[in-house]
Amino acid sequence: MLEKTTRMNYLYDFYQSLLTPKQRSYMSLYYLDDYSLGEIADEYDVSRQAVYDNIKRTEAMLEEYENKLLLLQKFQERTALLAQMKEMLDKGNYSVSALQKAIIELEELD
Amino acid sequence: MLEKTTRMNYLYDFYQSLLTPKQRSYMSLYYLDDYSLGEIADEYDVSRQAVYDNIKRTEAMLEEYENKLLLLQKFQERTALLAQMKEMLDKGNYSVSALQKAIIELEELD
Repeated sequence: MLEKTTRMNYLYDFYQSLLTPKQRSYMSLYYLDDYSLGEIADEYDVSRQAVYDNIKRTEAMLEEYENKLLLLQKFQERTALLAQMKEMLDKGNYSVSALQKAIIELEELD
Repeated sequence: MLEKTTRMNYLYDFYQSLLTPKQRSYMSLYYLDDYSLGEIADEYDVSRQAVYDNIKRTEAMLEEYENKLLLLQKFQERTALLAQMKEMLDKGNYSVSALQKAIIELEELD
């Protein structure tokens, strides 16, 4: 499991198009620009609690989307397979059958 | 652009987890099991029009998810790249640099 902030950054990256504009604003200020809850509250002229609740709900939604679509999990599996293939090729230490096997595993991820 | 039924089958495959149980039932009877609107209406004891409206709304939702997440489009691009790599390897007609280039293109799709 990734560290929470890193995980939220990834989930936000994959699923931000499914969020509302307000959810996107709060999440991007909080997770990408490292604003505090109080700073976001000042910026939008709402209570710190309102910002906190909105962000908690959005985090839960992102985890729910990931449970349903597994985009982050598949991305990580794909990234690992591609890194293996790259390393074999970069080092000249590959066999055609190992590459073919990795391609089949990549196909099966979809 | 794929033929409509094929496209809906793919979109349903990618996004079915985001639909309600009723939407999933109607879509799967209509698109996978080839039931008519009338047969689905009989099965669920609702009007043919109600089934039609539900399916049309679901189709629009699936297209909206695809506009936002591009899972089918990326799947098609990935499939094409993997097929190219496979063909090069199967025919023994590959170069390390061509394979490395395809891997970078696969990484950039995510």
